[in-house]
Amino acid sequence: MLSIGVVQHACGADREQNLARAVAGIEDAADRGAELVLLQELHNHAYFCHTEDPGNFDLAEPIPGPTTEALGNAAQRAGACVVGSVFERRTAGIYHNTAVVLERDGTVAGTYRKMHIPDDPGYQEKFYFTPGDQGFMPIDTSVGRLGVLVCWDQWYPEAARLMALAGAELLLFPSAIGWDLADDAAERQRQLESWITIQRSHAIANGLPVVCCNRVGDEKTPDSRFSIMFWGASFVCGPQGEMLWQGETDRPQVGVVTIDRGRSEQVRRIWPFLRDRRIDSYREIGKRFAD
Amino acid sequence: MLSIGVVQHACGADREQNLARAVAGIEDAADRGAELVLLQELHNHAYFCHTEDPGNFDLAEPIPGPTTEALGNAAQRAGACVVGSVFERRTAGIYHNTAVVLERDGTVAGTYRKMHIPDDPGYQEKFYFTPGDQGFMPIDTSVGRLGVLVCWDQWYPEAARLMALAGAELLLFPSAIGWDLADDAAERQRQLESWITIQRSHAIANGLPVVCCNRVGDEKTPDSRFSIMFWGASFVCGPQGEMLWQGETDRPQVGVVTIDRGRSEQVRRIWPFLRDRRIDSYREIGKRFAD
Repeated sequence: MLSIGVVQHACGADREQNLARAVAGIEDAADRGAELVLLQELHNHAYFCHTEDPGNFDLAEPIPGPTTEALGNAAQRAGACVVGSVFERRTAGIYHNTAVVLERDGTVAGTYRKMHIPDDPGYQEKFYFTPGDQGFMPIDTSVGRLGVLVCWDQWYPEAARLMALAGAELLLFPSAIGWDLADDAAERQRQLESWITIQRSHAIANGLPVVCCNRVGDEKTPDSRFSIMFWGASFVCGPQGEMLWQGETDRPQVGVVTIDRGRSEQVRRIWPFLRDRRIDSYREIGKRFAD
Repeated sequence: MLSIGVVQHACGADREQNLARAVAGIEDAADRGAELVLLQELHNHAYFCHTEDPGNFDLAEPIPGPTTEALGNAAQRAGACVVGSVFERRTAGIYHNTAVVLERDGTVAGTYRKMHIPDDPGYQEKFYFTPGDQGFMPIDTSVGRLGVLVCWDQWYPEAARLMALAGAELLLFPSAIGWDLADDAAERQRQLESWITIQRSHAIANGLPVVCCNRVGDEKTPDSRFSIMFWGASFVCGPQGEMLWQGETDRPQVGVVTIDRGRSEQVRRIWPFLRDRRIDSYREIGKRFAD
């Protein structure tokens, strides 16, 4: 069994206050037994990718750095492993959207640099984030081998599969996604359902639990030209995609849920999908398009 | 716009009666406007893979053969493209689980031989079906380029992705799956939901509509040692995985639904997943396991 905490909160302009919310969530989850706590994507910041502003690179920091130190201290105090998120400055001109895993002794167990980078109206991430170059490597911790991916990666079955094939025992998705209120209610519902559905499908395809943490709150650009209503709905599902806990769309929440780690092997025995993969016939996956 | 029919029925011991049900369904769907009709997997037969019986190879037939002739005639009468399923005898000792696409003029537009072959208690398909060797190639028809896959393939994101990369405009899954009544109600519910969820996820990941047709009915082995309650629940969903039509779990049904073919491109513009695939980093997909 493994007790997992998920810290869903809102973010504002004050970096210290955002981080304090994350740390308070870690403490709350650990008090309720969590051995592993997932934070949301870029939890220190209001989502700054609405616009392309070179000044925002000042928000980036190294790893190790102040955020990994603060999260490491929180992990140590809580006695829990923590998956956080850092706007990483690797060197001048190379910045990443990086998930960082802190061991329960406060050390950095490993990092994952977001591989798939979106770029859409309101999410101008290709300006800020250099695509990850570490590949899809799980991170070994005292609570298991963690397949940490970040937000846009969640739409790619390849990412989940590669983590599973590399031995991940759990998939984790720090996320920052929400509604454009210019869309009608039906479109908003389709988007939220799609996002949950595809992440549940990674659990199913790979026989692994999936943990996802997404922020809440309405965040406007400084000039108010654009706003995202982050839809929360963080969740934990089991290896058949069965929902074990789900957060609400409109308020901060700390969820704690216990998963049965033995279920993955049971499910992979009754649904032996990995056995029957046609690895002789997947070569074209490496193409952009087969024309 | 494209009007799609889905023919969900039960199968018994009488091959001619089973085929007559499929043909009646094609006629019903075409009467209601369907331009493309999907039948279920192995619609001519009671599901014979409960047990390993060499005598069952007598059920196999060539392509072209009596079933493609009957379905071709039905397609021509209905003026609709038909996706059927044949237990194919390719030569002595090589038999396939083959989807066959009949053009509205009755000719065979193409075939797809099931690539992923299951083998589980009650589904001893590895005994009967040689794995397909045509790869994941869509079939061009008068109603578009069809990505036809078969049953067990539905659990593999690779299969759907390869069809999409090869230009499929629609994914179609003839299926034969059901409950083992020895499982409790919660497990049965998880299985049904998983099966729907992963197929909807192929729509989402690839921005394509998905059409699935599954049989209904309780089918026992001749010696009654094992029975599958086929769960129906055939469905059509759009390119965000949004459900457009869903059949029931316990009765024959012919569904007809019109899809907006332009939606795929709209959805791929707002969710440009194909643009951002990390094709430089997917090589390990071709491995069994990364050890």
